[in-house]
Amino acid sequence: MVSAQEQTPSNEQQIREAIQGFADAVRARDLERMMSYYAPDVVAFDLMPPLRLIGREEYQRSWEGALSAMEGDILMEATDLDVSASGSVGYAHALSHMTVGTKDGGTMSNWIRWSACFEKRQGKWLVTHEHTSWPIDMESGKAVMDLKP
Amino acid sequence: MVSAQEQTPSNEQQIREAIQGFADAVRARDLERMMSYYAPDVVAFDLMPPLRLIGREEYQRSWEGALSAMEGDILMEATDLDVSASGSVGYAHALSHMTVGTKDGGTMSNWIRWSACFEKRQGKWLVTHEHTSWPIDMESGKAVMDLKP
Repeated sequence: MVSAQEQTPSNEQQIREAIQGFADAVRARDLERMMSYYAPDVVAFDLMPPLRLIGREEYQRSWEGALSAMEGDILMEATDLDVSASGSVGYAHALSHMTVGTKDGGTMSNWIRWSACFEKRQGKWLVTHEHTSWPIDMESGKAVMDLKP
Repeated sequence: MVSAQEQTPSNEQQIREAIQGFADAVRARDLERMMSYYAPDVVAFDLMPPLRLIGREEYQRSWEGALSAMEGDILMEATDLDVSASGSVGYAHALSHMTVGTKDGGTMSNWIRWSACFEKRQGKWLVTHEHTSWPIDMESGKAVMDLKP
């Protein structure tokens, strides 16, 4: 006999599957599938300006720009992924290593700090808030992009 | 007759009170009280390197350094504070305006993106994850610190 617990993935497991699904969609450059993981009212603090992006449509335009600036394969690897959830609210954070080609023929490869907050709406975990960044060296005012976990 | 709901603040309200209590502790430069809002296993993605801080003790040393670099009054104002909670997990994000004096006699005043994740442990909401940052201008590699909400 299979218990209900074995049949239904835990909330944490469902969130991990959403994170994996989103990463697969980025690698496939499938913008529509990527955006299906975000809540309509998502608020994002992104790597680049503006200060914040409000709503899925604004975030989609930002992702469109980011994808068009990346050449070739997009490699992503997360480490130290931590996921917590209770009821209809959850969160996750990780260090995400991204390697992409740039328009000028170069390669950009570095670690990014990534945090996401989730809400379960109509049975599906959606990202309601996302925050990605690099730390700043206060002497130079520059992002420190060569740090490793 | 007072209902139980009126007697007990909601989870969201309890988290808002924790955020206010932390801000009061920063203004009072009360490091011990500040750290009481963090979980022992907090993971922080802070404004400055390293990539991440693991555990309350490491975060406390970072806060010690930050407080000692700030001269005079510390002014903090949050806008667009959004709080969600369910069961024992919650999160909050806001834009936080901080004005502090610097050692060289200047003033640093700008908006910071702030996200925090909470878990309710033994009846108290603690910050288990925190992420603060500025966005980066990719041309110059510099933090963009003069953005306003």
